[in-house]
Amino acid sequence: MIYFDNAASSYPKPYSVSKSVGMWLKSNGANPGRSGHKPAIEASGVIYDTRSVICKMLGMDEPENIVFVPNATYGLNFLIQGILKSGDHAVTTDLEHNSVLRPLKLLEKKGVSFDTVCVDLYDDDKTVDNILKNIKKNTKLVICTQCSNVCGKVMPIQKISAALPEGVRLVVDGAQGAGIIPTDMKRDGIDYYCAPSHKGLMGPQGSGFIAINNELFEPLIVGGTGSESFDLNQPEYLPDMLESGTLPTPVIKGMYEGIKFILDIGIENIYRHKISLVKYAVNALNGLDGVITYVDPDLACFASTTCFNIIGSSSDRVAAYLADNDICVRSGIHCAPLFHKKMGTENTGMVRISFGCYNTESEIDVFIKILKKYLKK
Amino acid sequence: MIYFDNAASSYPKPYSVSKSVGMWLKSNGANPGRSGHKPAIEASGVIYDTRSVICKMLGMDEPENIVFVPNATYGLNFLIQGILKSGDHAVTTDLEHNSVLRPLKLLEKKGVSFDTVCVDLYDDDKTVDNILKNIKKNTKLVICTQCSNVCGKVMPIQKISAALPEGVRLVVDGAQGAGIIPTDMKRDGIDYYCAPSHKGLMGPQGSGFIAINNELFEPLIVGGTGSESFDLNQPEYLPDMLESGTLPTPVIKGMYEGIKFILDIGIENIYRHKISLVKYAVNALNGLDGVITYVDPDLACFASTTCFNIIGSSSDRVAAYLADNDICVRSGIHCAPLFHKKMGTENTGMVRISFGCYNTESEIDVFIKILKKYLKK
Repeated sequence: MIYFDNAASSYPKPYSVSKSVGMWLKSNGANPGRSGHKPAIEASGVIYDTRSVICKMLGMDEPENIVFVPNATYGLNFLIQGILKSGDHAVTTDLEHNSVLRPLKLLEKKGVSFDTVCVDLYDDDKTVDNILKNIKKNTKLVICTQCSNVCGKVMPIQKISAALPEGVRLVVDGAQGAGIIPTDMKRDGIDYYCAPSHKGLMGPQGSGFIAINNELFEPLIVGGTGSESFDLNQPEYLPDMLESGTLPTPVIKGMYEGIKFILDIGIENIYRHKISLVKYAVNALNGLDGVITYVDPDLACFASTTCFNIIGSSSDRVAAYLADNDICVRSGIHCAPLFHKKMGTENTGMVRISFGCYNTESEIDVFIKILKKYLKK
Repeated sequence: MIYFDNAASSYPKPYSVSKSVGMWLKSNGANPGRSGHKPAIEASGVIYDTRSVICKMLGMDEPENIVFVPNATYGLNFLIQGILKSGDHAVTTDLEHNSVLRPLKLLEKKGVSFDTVCVDLYDDDKTVDNILKNIKKNTKLVICTQCSNVCGKVMPIQKISAALPEGVRLVVDGAQGAGIIPTDMKRDGIDYYCAPSHKGLMGPQGSGFIAINNELFEPLIVGGTGSESFDLNQPEYLPDMLESGTLPTPVIKGMYEGIKFILDIGIENIYRHKISLVKYAVNALNGLDGVITYVDPDLACFASTTCFNIIGSSSDRVAAYLADNDICVRSGIHCAPLFHKKMGTENTGMVRISFGCYNTESEIDVFIKILKKYLKK
C-alpha cells in the first residue's frame, strides 16, 4: 500500500507511538491531576512532559501555556469563539479550512463580522497587503493557516505578524504545519497556535493543543478541572481554565512519542523532504498528458501536499481507481470551499496527495505509473 | 497494587482494549468518513460498529443518534449550552459534578436561570417531589446524574422522567452509570444521555458519546465534517452536526472493545457486583473505630463508589497513607461541591473508593487491614 493521505492523518506512525500507547493502556489507567497515587502521578508526568516537548518545539518557555484540546477544530473554535465578541471583526484567507470558516460564520449571528482575503500563491507581499487593506478599527483577530491543506502553500506568517497593527492578534492554524514547518512562536510573532496530534506530529487521533503566547480568553467548555472545586466558576488560570474533563493520557503519551520522533529527525529536515516530494510529484504530474496541476513549486514554497485533476474525470473517480490499486489519496472538496472557488474546481473537486515523513520518490514513481494506466484506459 | 479509583478512570482495561488500540495504531492511521480508500473505509467501519454497540447497550435503534464527543464534560456542555437559551430555566440536583454545575453557572451570564434541588438519599419520592416543586413555566431541562461520583447513590431516573411535565427534557449524566447501571433510553424516558469511554465502559480516555432520543440542539463546536463542504453553515443532521474535526478512531476502537466486554459479562451482573462491593466495604468500614461512613447501603441503592473519613485526619492524609501502601483511592472534593456542603465535609473532603469489574472482596479485606494500621498509629 502507498499512503498519500497524510494531510488527513499520518500513517504509518513511528513504532514508539503505537507501542507506547498500547503499553500505557496495559500498565496505567489513571486520571492525571485528580489523585495522589502512583499511577495518577505517573499520568501527570506524561502530561507535563508533553507540554514541555511542545514548548521545546515552538520555542516557548511555559508548559502551562500549552493547553490540550481534542483536535485542531476544537482548538480553533476555542480561540475564535473565545476571543471574538459582538462588534468585533476578523480577517481570514481564502485558503482556510471549514474549521475556521464555520466558526466565523456561526459568530456572524452573534454580531461578529469577518472578511476573507485573497492569498496570492506567488507574491507574499501582495497577500500581506490584502490582509492589511481589510484591517478595520474593530479588527481583533487575523486567522491564517500555516500551510494549505489542499495545495500545500506555506503562508508567510512572519511577514503577516510583522505587518499587523498593535492590538490585532494572530491565530495560526497549524493543522498542516505542525511538525512540518519549523515554528518559533516568538520569532514568528504568533499569538495563538493550534495543531492536532495525528498529522505532522505523528501521534494518534484524539488530541491536539493550543499554544498561548498572549492574553487569556473565555473558555467555551467548562466543568471539572480537579482545582478550585468549590467555585462554580471555572478557574481563571492556565491550563485549568481551558482543560475541563479527563485528559486523554494514552493519546497524549502517543503524541509525546510522535513529537520526540520528529524532533530527533529535525523539523528542518522533514520540511526539506516534504518540499522536495511536492516538487518531484508536481514535476512528474506535469509530464503526463491530460493532467492538470494547480501550483508551481519553483515559484513559491509548497510543502507536504499537492493536488491535481485529470481532464474529463471527477476527482472521486480518479481516487477510486488509485484506491483499487492500493494507493490512498483523497478526492473532493477537502473542507476548503473558498480555495476551490478560487481555482474553479467547485464541480470536480481535486485529487489530493499528501506526504508523510516516510514517503519516498520511488512511491511517487509507482503512483505515476498507475496514473498512466488510468490515462490510457 | 489495589486500584480503587475506577470512578476517575477504570483500570485495568480488558486485554482486548489495550491490544486492539495498539494494533489499530500499527495497522491503520486513516481518518474515517473523509476518504474512500481501504484504511479510511475500515476506520468508518469502526465508528459505525461502535455507534451500533452503544445503541444496543441503550436500547436505541438509530446509530446516527449516537454522537461521539471527547468526554462526558464536553457532552454535558454541548447539551446544556446547546439546549438552554436566554430566558430558559433548568433544574438540577445537589449530587451533580462541576461538569453540570459550571456550565449552568456560565449560562447565568447569558440569561439562563437554574435551581439545585436536594436529593433525599433514602426517599426517591421526596427527591422527585423536590424536582417537581422547582419546575417553572420556563423550565426546559432537568439535568441529573445517573449515579453520584462520590457516594454512589443510584438516582431514580425512571421515576423522575415519568413525573416530568410535557416539554421538560431530561439530560442524564451517565459518567458514573454507563456500563454499570442497566439503561434503556426509551424505558427509562431519557431524552439525552452522555458518558465517557474510560470509566464503566472500560475503554481508553479520549472519547465518549451523547445519545440523542429527542430533538436536535445547536452545536457548540463547528467546523469540518467532510460533508456539505461548500456550505459555511454546519450541516443540520446527525451525527455530522455535532461531530466536527477528526474523530479519535483508536480510542473509539478501544471503547468498542470495552463495551463488547461489558455486554459479554452482562451489565446486570456488573451492577450486582458493584452494589455488593459497596455493601461489603461500608459494612467493613463501619466495623472500624474512628471511621465515618456516609451512606447506608441497606436502605437504598448505592453502586460502585463509596466514601469515608477518619476522625481527626484530612482525607488527603489518609489517601497518601493508602498510596504509600499501594492502594489507589482519591481524596478531596471530587468536583461535587454541593454534595460536600450537604454532608458537612467542605473542610476535610472525603476519601473515595470506587470499584471496577475486576475488584474483589478480598482486596477490600486488604484495604481494611491497612486502614487498621493507620488507625493504630
